[in-house]
Amino acid sequence: MTITPTSPMERLREYLHTTRLLGTIHSTLYFDQNTVMPAAAAPWRGEQLALLARQLHQRQSSREFQDLLAAAEAEVASEGDTPSQPASIAAGATASSSTPGSLASAAADRRHNLRLLRQELERQSRLDPVLVGRLAEAQAQGYARWQEARARSDFALFAPALEELVRLRQEQARQLAEPRSCWETLAQVFEPDVSHRRLAELFGPLVEGLPPLLERAASLPPLPPDDWDLSDDAQDRLSQVLLQDWGYDPSRCVRSRSPHPFSCTIGPADFRITTRVVPGLPFSSFLATAHEWGHSLYEQGLPRSDDHYFPWPLGEATSMGVHESQSLFFECRLARSAAFAERWYPRFREALGRDPWGAPRRFWRALNPMRAGLNRVEADELSYSLHIVLRYELERGLLEEGMAVAELPQRWNDGMERLLGLRPANDAEGCLQDVHWSEGLFGYFPSYALGHLISAQLAEALEAELGPIEARVAAGDEVAITAWLGRRVWPLGRRVSGEELVERLSGRPLEATPFLRHLETKLAALAD
Amino acid sequence: MTITPTSPMERLREYLHTTRLLGTIHSTLYFDQNTVMPAAAAPWRGEQLALLARQLHQRQSSREFQDLLAAAEAEVASEGDTPSQPASIAAGATASSSTPGSLASAAADRRHNLRLLRQELERQSRLDPVLVGRLAEAQAQGYARWQEARARSDFALFAPALEELVRLRQEQARQLAEPRSCWETLAQVFEPDVSHRRLAELFGPLVEGLPPLLERAASLPPLPPDDWDLSDDAQDRLSQVLLQDWGYDPSRCVRSRSPHPFSCTIGPADFRITTRVVPGLPFSSFLATAHEWGHSLYEQGLPRSDDHYFPWPLGEATSMGVHESQSLFFECRLARSAAFAERWYPRFREALGRDPWGAPRRFWRALNPMRAGLNRVEADELSYSLHIVLRYELERGLLEEGMAVAELPQRWNDGMERLLGLRPANDAEGCLQDVHWSEGLFGYFPSYALGHLISAQLAEALEAELGPIEARVAAGDEVAITAWLGRRVWPLGRRVSGEELVERLSGRPLEATPFLRHLETKLAALAD
Repeated sequence: MTITPTSPMERLREYLHTTRLLGTIHSTLYFDQNTVMPAAAAPWRGEQLALLARQLHQRQSSREFQDLLAAAEAEVASEGDTPSQPASIAAGATASSSTPGSLASAAADRRHNLRLLRQELERQSRLDPVLVGRLAEAQAQGYARWQEARARSDFALFAPALEELVRLRQEQARQLAEPRSCWETLAQVFEPDVSHRRLAELFGPLVEGLPPLLERAASLPPLPPDDWDLSDDAQDRLSQVLLQDWGYDPSRCVRSRSPHPFSCTIGPADFRITTRVVPGLPFSSFLATAHEWGHSLYEQGLPRSDDHYFPWPLGEATSMGVHESQSLFFECRLARSAAFAERWYPRFREALGRDPWGAPRRFWRALNPMRAGLNRVEADELSYSLHIVLRYELERGLLEEGMAVAELPQRWNDGMERLLGLRPANDAEGCLQDVHWSEGLFGYFPSYALGHLISAQLAEALEAELGPIEARVAAGDEVAITAWLGRRVWPLGRRVSGEELVERLSGRPLEATPFLRHLETKLAALAD
Repeated sequence: MTITPTSPMERLREYLHTTRLLGTIHSTLYFDQNTVMPAAAAPWRGEQLALLARQLHQRQSSREFQDLLAAAEAEVASEGDTPSQPASIAAGATASSSTPGSLASAAADRRHNLRLLRQELERQSRLDPVLVGRLAEAQAQGYARWQEARARSDFALFAPALEELVRLRQEQARQLAEPRSCWETLAQVFEPDVSHRRLAELFGPLVEGLPPLLERAASLPPLPPDDWDLSDDAQDRLSQVLLQDWGYDPSRCVRSRSPHPFSCTIGPADFRITTRVVPGLPFSSFLATAHEWGHSLYEQGLPRSDDHYFPWPLGEATSMGVHESQSLFFECRLARSAAFAERWYPRFREALGRDPWGAPRRFWRALNPMRAGLNRVEADELSYSLHIVLRYELERGLLEEGMAVAELPQRWNDGMERLLGLRPANDAEGCLQDVHWSEGLFGYFPSYALGHLISAQLAEALEAELGPIEARVAAGDEVAITAWLGRRVWPLGRRVSGEELVERLSGRPLEATPFLRHLETKLAALAD
């Protein structure tokens, strides 16, 4: 605080540092809102968040920031090494192939950081601050209305808030004026460079391939009886043991409860995850813990311990798809694996006080129902992506095809029947189940399915180097797996895009094949 | 949000509203820090709080605020009714005697609000923003160091942070340049118009009167055995029942755990209290719940439901002494009363699963040990104020008499021996027990003892109207008592000062006599 920064890059870093402070204040309020805040406090919290959103937007588009960025660009351009691309180029530039930490890489990183900042500045500058404030208020309102609507299973209570959010997001896309469709524009913040065309390539094989696999799964040995449940305390203890096994450090991490599980980072040494206990779904909280911990480990492994990095774009997650690939890896590749089930079978038997499974393999079978359900968050890896396809279709409908908000429950239920063969009995188990739309997050859902694809392709790369994941898990050696991810994936941050990351580690462009291959192998093993 | 305010008073209200939003964001971070935040997050949280403190200071001393205030003063002056006092007069003006809500009162309130804002602006304008930022950082640092030092019972770990806080607070008093001593200047924010002279008048009778009473208490019937403890869960359930009985509304209130119990308001419908469970002190959490709930009820009863009021000074607590009088009222007048003990005796017996008391009166005796202890928070009403006298002496020493921070443990222990006849065995049970100094809060402690005096004098006024408190509590009619406070005390906010409040309701200036009288009566009853 006492040293006055002098170089333009230093001054820019200071500025970004303060912006990050404000952003994490926003995250703290979000965490509080979802874990402890009383319901009646929602309107005030909405105003607080709107105020912070306005401040953040102001900082991210201010004259001061523009000047700092321009000065930093001039400084870096004069380093003797001409930037390889004009400063305002779109993101997704080829990653530096030099060793991380080398001098050449540092210069390339500086240029890359400035390119990403320039891109973001141009986006922010196009947004009307009035819209930014309204969006923040509409999000807080939407969340409160959604909670109420879900509790009463009455979509009509939420519909006006959702209409407002759709309208504001459409306005946002119009103001951004990118050479993309409305939905594509909104999805950029989650999945840079995503397009309907690319999603058709990646999701097509899923819509084609998953239903036959679901049909095949119907002839698996029957599931063990599900007439058992675990107490709140027992679920809590099992999750605690899992996290201890997987390196949870209570001096840097917090775990809480919220209506919808999430992970968030509130500071360079402040990582939070939340889960919920769902009566009748005794694996839910445990698997959500594994899932959210995967998100948190990615955040913890990003290049933010280095002071140089934390406030810079390259220190951020590269895409929500990659983020999700890490959480799904810990949930599906580790916690739902046969070897893991073998190790945890005695712990669950003991926690429950009886044994509804009779053998480790039947416990494993219980962890992998491989059948369609109504709920996305509780879905297994076989049916999960079909939930996503439905949401993606409906978002396109709402944002780009003039579909009325009032039609949503009917369209949702029809889609569920078409894709998964099930029809929700009410809105709570139907179109009100997810938090995302309540906050106007459109364009986010596909990242979940992309996460499955990325996770599968990275798992093949990992196994090529470390041998089968099952063998490592059987040996209780998740540390080797975590270390591989911590070396190859997490420290890259935004140096590479999601697609580049996959190609760099697997040698092939991202595709659906490894994921479908994994599911076929698993189905075969479960049929054994 | 869409209506542009036009009148100067309206514009000023909008400005104060935003300031209040920022202030409650700060409170949210404070609550999070004390209830869930992991330890390693402290430095970042310190920076977040410092940023908010700078923003708050900037808003409270900005050119824009000065212009808005001046315009509002001009508007109110032209209302036809000349302000009775110049705008920059010190606070503590005589309260309007007209009915609250009447037109005349509304005009007087407007003038009063503007006077208080003017006074606060003049204070803020004198502070260097650099000092404000440093203080916020030193507070966060101090809190982290104090936690560590207390855990290890090692004052030396905390001393450098405390030295820095003393230095910064002395600098703050110098910058404020009031016609008061350093300690008096710092105490103004907690206790407007407090002075060493007035405290000598009020505390003199306590230093004189309490030790003989403590001596008399030594010959009370022996305390019931204390070889019992309540589980965490049992303590939690009892506190929950207490709050349900006393009108706790979970849609507006939250209760959490923290190392030091506190109450805070995070929004007009967001009230939080915290307690802790202390092994071996099974009444601690229960009595702290009663205490913090008293604070919270005062906050909930302040005139903030009225939109006109919430951001205005008159909507705030008038002093920490009055705040504390309300918490002490619920703790000592209600929860420690004989009638209350009679009603709760079966509940505690059941929670414990056995009966170490044998009779309601012996349970009451256990709730009122009436003997000196080392810990302020756990002290009963008889010895409590002597803990305060010690802290007040030491603060004067540190801030005004050149006492070295390094001397504090020794001076603390000597003072404990002189005033209470006990000597702490280590720093954790000695000078590290309180959170206040870790945040540089000097001048706060006397409010606790003033709270006892105010509570006693208000209780006499209440009994003059409603009859004996004991009879109401025996009938389970705490509602009548709460309603009296909610009618006579809470809605006054800063319309009257603490001393004026007492005089208005009791007909006499504040004095120590009612409190000492209460203690004598209680001792006599306990001896029965």
